Amino acid sequence: MQKEIPGEERFKVRRLEISDKSKGFIELLQQLSVCDSVPEEEFRTRFEELKSHGDDHVICVIEDDQSGKIIATGSVFVEKKFLRNCAKVGHIEDVVVDSSARGLKLGQKIVSSLTDHARCVGCYKVILDCSVDNIGFYEKCGFKQKEIQMARYFDQ
Amino acid sequence: MQKEIPGEERFKVRRLEISDKSKGFIELLQQLSVCDSVPEEEFRTRFEELKSHGDDHVICVIEDDQSGKIIATGSVFVEKKFLRNCAKVGHIEDVVVDSSARGLKLGQKIVSSLTDHARCVGCYKVILDCSVDNIGFYEKCGFKQKEIQMARYFDQ
Repeated sequence: MQKEIPGEERFKVRRLEISDKSKGFIELLQQLSVCDSVPEEEFRTRFEELKSHGDDHVICVIEDDQSGKIIATGSVFVEKKFLRNCAKVGHIEDVVVDSSARGLKLGQKIVSSLTDHARCVGCYKVILDCSVDNIGFYEKCGFKQKEIQMARYFDQ
Repeated sequence: MQKEIPGEERFKVRRLEISDKSKGFIELLQQLSVCDSVPEEEFRTRFEELKSHGDDHVICVIEDDQSGKIIATGSVFVEKKFLRNCAKVGHIEDVVVDSSARGLKLGQKIVSSLTDHARCVGCYKVILDCSVDNIGFYEKCGFKQKEIQMARYFDQ
């Protein structure tokens, strides 16, 4: 019989590793938006590129130790400004929890970890854009509604 | 008598230069948000830091050739994702036009330049956050309302 792992231990937040591609990381992103399968070499190039930014661009994941699958992720990158005396702002992006793992508060765990990271590296605020449906979730994470996101798409 | 310079030539968009600090760049930012005067050394460090990102972080300015003052600015940085087949997204930030130079469409000029840059480096979209009051301006620039910006501020 498989030993039961307590939730705290089973769902630890850690940084993305290159081996997570084979643990369903891209498939997880596909639940958020369009994302074809990424060739190995392209994945490695982007991974190394982001890693070179060190603490200025961090992707967090939660791996389910029982299934060996990545079941939650989110990223934060640090923008450096001249405004507010050369301040830093954390931007949270691409938060998603596997559909089979909803209700376990993994989303909150990821957002909390990304927020803590932004605070630790000296950001004065952390921001993100979400759909109207997700406002309640982010309010529970300590966020408040602020401005309007505008977008302009280019023809592909 | 000073020679009249045509608008097209007088208001050219160019990249921020280190000497723009003495041309009122920080004072211009102060019209947007809190920004104390930045010590020379701190300005240089941040400038070099941002410059090291090359085309991935660009600050544009418009200098009024007659007064020698920076009268408009805006920035765009490129976020690299795994989503959408390792896509890139342009983030526009800190767009401001000097209060004495409003009505000359310099804001549109800056946003158009930042947008063109994002397109040229391969972004599939460019996004920004603005107040409700500025939605109309960004619609004129080709943007559409999309999501809700949420923010969490840290105690300073």
